[in-house]
Amino acid sequence: MTQDKQRFGTDARGVYLIAVTPFKDSGDIDFESTDRMVDFYLESGANGLTLLGVMGEAPKLTAQESGEFVERVLRRVNGKVPVIVGASAPGFAAMKALSQRVVDMGADGVMVAPAAGLRTDDQIRAYFAMVNETLGSIPWVLQDHPNSTGVQISTSLLIDLLAQSPNCLMLKHEDGPGLAKLSAIRDAETSKGLRRVSILTGNGGGLFLPEELVRGADGAMTGFAYPEMMVDVCRAFDEGQAERAFDLFDAYLPLARYEQQPGVGLAVRKHLMHKRGIIASEKIRRPGPSLSAADRADIDRLVRRQTERLAQIG
Amino acid sequence: MTQDKQRFGTDARGVYLIAVTPFKDSGDIDFESTDRMVDFYLESGANGLTLLGVMGEAPKLTAQESGEFVERVLRRVNGKVPVIVGASAPGFAAMKALSQRVVDMGADGVMVAPAAGLRTDDQIRAYFAMVNETLGSIPWVLQDHPNSTGVQISTSLLIDLLAQSPNCLMLKHEDGPGLAKLSAIRDAETSKGLRRVSILTGNGGGLFLPEELVRGADGAMTGFAYPEMMVDVCRAFDEGQAERAFDLFDAYLPLARYEQQPGVGLAVRKHLMHKRGIIASEKIRRPGPSLSAADRADIDRLVRRQTERLAQIG
Amino acid sequence: MTQDKQRFGTDARGVYLIAVTPFKDSGDIDFESTDRMVDFYLESGANGLTLLGVMGEAPKLTAQESGEFVERVLRRVNGKVPVIVGASAPGFAAMKALSQRVVDMGADGVMVAPAAGLRTDDQIRAYFAMVNETLGSIPWVLQDHPNSTGVQISTSLLIDLLAQSPNCLMLKHEDGPGLAKLSAIRDAETSKGLRRVSILTGNGGGLFLPEELVRGADGAMTGFAYPEMMVDVCRAFDEGQAERAFDLFDAYLPLARYEQQPGVGLAVRKHLMHKRGIIASEKIRRPGPSLSAADRADIDRLVRRQTERLAQIG
Amino acid sequence: MTQDKQRFGTDARGVYLIAVTPFKDSGDIDFESTDRMVDFYLESGANGLTLLGVMGEAPKLTAQESGEFVERVLRRVNGKVPVIVGASAPGFAAMKALSQRVVDMGADGVMVAPAAGLRTDDQIRAYFAMVNETLGSIPWVLQDHPNSTGVQISTSLLIDLLAQSPNCLMLKHEDGPGLAKLSAIRDAETSKGLRRVSILTGNGGGLFLPEELVRGADGAMTGFAYPEMMVDVCRAFDEGQAERAFDLFDAYLPLARYEQQPGVGLAVRKHLMHKRGIIASEKIRRPGPSLSAADRADIDRLVRRQTERLAQIG
Repeated sequence: MTQDKQRFGTDARGVYLIAVTPFKDSGDIDFESTDRMVDFYLESGANGLTLLGVMGEAPKLTAQESGEFVERVLRRVNGKVPVIVGASAPGFAAMKALSQRVVDMGADGVMVAPAAGLRTDDQIRAYFAMVNETLGSIPWVLQDHPNSTGVQISTSLLIDLLAQSPNCLMLKHEDGPGLAKLSAIRDAETSKGLRRVSILTGNGGGLFLPEELVRGADGAMTGFAYPEMMVDVCRAFDEGQAERAFDLFDAYLPLARYEQQPGVGLAVRKHLMHKRGIIASEKIRRPGPSLSAADRADIDRLVRRQTERLAQIG
Repeated sequence: MTQDKQRFGTDARGVYLIAVTPFKDSGDIDFESTDRMVDFYLESGANGLTLLGVMGEAPKLTAQESGEFVERVLRRVNGKVPVIVGASAPGFAAMKALSQRVVDMGADGVMVAPAAGLRTDDQIRAYFAMVNETLGSIPWVLQDHPNSTGVQISTSLLIDLLAQSPNCLMLKHEDGPGLAKLSAIRDAETSKGLRRVSILTGNGGGLFLPEELVRGADGAMTGFAYPEMMVDVCRAFDEGQAERAFDLFDAYLPLARYEQQPGVGLAVRKHLMHKRGIIASEKIRRPGPSLSAADRADIDRLVRRQTERLAQIG
Repeated sequence: MTQDKQRFGTDARGVYLIAVTPFKDSGDIDFESTDRMVDFYLESGANGLTLLGVMGEAPKLTAQESGEFVERVLRRVNGKVPVIVGASAPGFAAMKALSQRVVDMGADGVMVAPAAGLRTDDQIRAYFAMVNETLGSIPWVLQDHPNSTGVQISTSLLIDLLAQSPNCLMLKHEDGPGLAKLSAIRDAETSKGLRRVSILTGNGGGLFLPEELVRGADGAMTGFAYPEMMVDVCRAFDEGQAERAFDLFDAYLPLARYEQQPGVGLAVRKHLMHKRGIIASEKIRRPGPSLSAADRADIDRLVRRQTERLAQIG
Repeated sequence: MTQDKQRFGTDARGVYLIAVTPFKDSGDIDFESTDRMVDFYLESGANGLTLLGVMGEAPKLTAQESGEFVERVLRRVNGKVPVIVGASAPGFAAMKALSQRVVDMGADGVMVAPAAGLRTDDQIRAYFAMVNETLGSIPWVLQDHPNSTGVQISTSLLIDLLAQSPNCLMLKHEDGPGLAKLSAIRDAETSKGLRRVSILTGNGGGLFLPEELVRGADGAMTGFAYPEMMVDVCRAFDEGQAERAFDLFDAYLPLARYEQQPGVGLAVRKHLMHKRGIIASEKIRRPGPSLSAADRADIDRLVRRQTERLAQIG
């Protein structure tokens, strides 16, 4: 599938997929599966890719492996869609080095979550002032994900942060329950003249996608073994077919819910991607979850029922 | 509806509903709505009731109000189904006083979660040894809910706790992802001779109910504005109609997912219970969430679609 | 010792002692020891007492016991010094009921810490707005103790809270390291016209008392088996004898450090109060720490060395 | 000062100093100050050095800087004392790569703390099984520091971990209050045949050093701007002069307490090391604390009083 280069900017729309990192059974990165995965994501209609997030097992890679993986993906994507790379780091020196390196390789931007341990509004504000200074002109995505960082950003503070971060082009919105926060940010664009940013959601791993589109989200940034669901939901919604967007979403919801279980979810995703022929092995680096026979039976049932339901709605 | 007294015991099955506490717009407890709610729960087919949980706004009641509410519910239930009362307390003196009081009123048992702050296995083991000593012969339910307590009980430790707690008759299983833990407990009954307890689940607020029934759960202990869903799913499953159980569950899942959002979920539940004519006001005591117009529109859409879907599956 | 009634107000100075709750070996509250303890505190020169804090084992008392204990202390104090009662509660209804009850008994004010779980500035601000509304005209102390509550209040937010809480007369300052925060609050009185409140410190259990007096603290609110140290340090400082204040403090510091160990500290305190003939038993209600022979040997050595050092400085 | 190579082994004794990382005012690593600091530590009588701990601002260095710093220190130490390097990492691949690299450079071992987020005994046990597998034959130090990691290891579990980790030669004991844990480990060597490991303490930054030596600790692993205190305390204790050990400790305690304040402590340490002519700048990389004029006045007073007190005790 050929597509025009999509823009990573404040008007970015659609689905940015959080890529997994494929491993061989030996534990080494599987670069052939990496290529196949990139092709699959592009064919599914992804509007962008995000690398080295938690679901990409980034913390389990050495620095050298991270570099090689980003390079491989960028080469395969070949500019067809924007690529964002996770650059959260315990210190600003490492954040700067990592960000500059991936941008030099061709990445379109980086994603930054607040450091664990930040608590007060003043601490969070100071942190992002330093992020802005550290990243300079590199475009970036603010990841608001309290469940993984432990950092809670109030709506009013988030509006301030966006206002004061000219190179923050996108919000990865995954503070749940987050519908009110999403509405408040969009409202602030009108009522307070807040600069617009693209908002892609990941709340519950996309489990509120259609409601979030109704509230003004531009799409989703998350992972799912059936990324075509998110693409189709976003497209139906963009084409004014809201009811169809809900129908599609509901058909996939039972499986999506199962895949979004914390911890074991990544094993579900890799298992399904393996079954679909995308990656050669469902290997997860330790420490990581594995699936029991009962889990696999659950998944088989959910996939079967999903297929039947999709056939019904056409 | 007349029903034979159900037993609260290690073979308890079905749905124990977590009751809300109805308030008037003034903030006072609404005892008339309380009666109506009890009737509704019983007519829905509830196999038991659980009072003074977090979703019952227990921490927002004074000690006197708690007592009056429990008394009112017990009088209305009139022995038709077992009633469990939350008795978690910061100290054992208070736990003992509260438990004895509700049992004297006629409650069938109490529910205890580990105190926040417990961390190591040894600490948790010592805590429950003191729970056993404190409760004496009062039957109790162990609530395993790390998301609210912050206390993580490993599977092996949970098996030990159950083995050493002869008056713990039921596990409220809401550690998510929890399917593997559920399977392991049931396995331990065969492989390690673990005494059987009733396991009612609340993982994600019931969002994994059918899979949990497959794994050996006896039912659910949670709340939902459409408790008939849980009752019907459990019944279908018990009657060997697993596929129908999944169909029913899937029809309600989009709304259940919405109602189970942390924080705002209680407002959704009370709103729906008000709309269904069960409680006179959707009032929540402060601090508590409230619904926006956009939230209400979401709920209306979800209810409409749920009704349509239920009509399809018959 | 007879003394004029001291005032609980924004200019309160000196030492407010956090009282322990004496138990008999049986575990019952020991009211005779309670009287003796009150006498001892007053003779030591305490300027006020604080009841039902964590070190008073408040969470381990039943509601009835708490009431009886407060009543007994108030009767024995008989108006000689102000008495503050801890009124932190999981909900506002309980906070209101408890506060009104102790004020009706004769307490001079209540102490409130933010509820665990509050994270953002907006949440904390809303919480204290409701505290103000709940307490009405009851004078109160704001307890800023992140180590026990998990709630971090930034300096700028704390200044806002004090400005907007006219009946908050005192800050119990135990955010450590807290010297900069203390200086900033005192500065805000001049630079921003912040209303003055009394600031009593408990940072590290008084382990920074002399430095805090230098920064403008009015005294200490904490416990120590040798309360005369805190009284003498505050008096020396007030009389312009700063160097003597430091000498006294340093003489007691090795033991104070030992008594302020989290967890085991209360056992050390009760052991010493028992040895000094103040309370009849060193009993702590479970769950609670106990002392080993090695601990007791440590304490004996520290007390001996403390006595020798005090003899040297005269 | 020339000294024979000391052994890093299960019988290691004395003081392993946690080195700071000296920066220039520009923020670059100051390698000349690094050399001077190493010389100072060796002349103070350090029995070992530990690099890249939290107080060494390890998370603020890039991977390249970390390597250069370790290399510089190792060259200057030139085998005179053992050097341990912090190797905690979010994943095992990075831990392995980092550990192998510093051992190849000449480090004597690495130090590993449990990953943040581990909760149950089973999780912690599994984690250290993988640490053992990852490190292979590399000698290592187990750092038990719940305040920084959030991971609480019970005494019984810690004994298991030591028993099952043949290449763990040393415990960095900084779980406070930790005296009972320390006694229990030493007891287990006799009562349960636990293999002996060296135990160096850092509880409260050394604020319980003499009591810990009494309980069987072999020394301290922590930092302090006056490392000669820890060296002299350990030596006096080893020579049977326990009372002198306490005298020395008490003389330094007021300043040590001030320097061990969380957060601001590193600024105090670097300020004092700068004043003592060891490092050229007191620069701390952001985000980091800085000292106010009032802080500096506190420090000056404490140093003056410490000097006077040391003169008294001779």
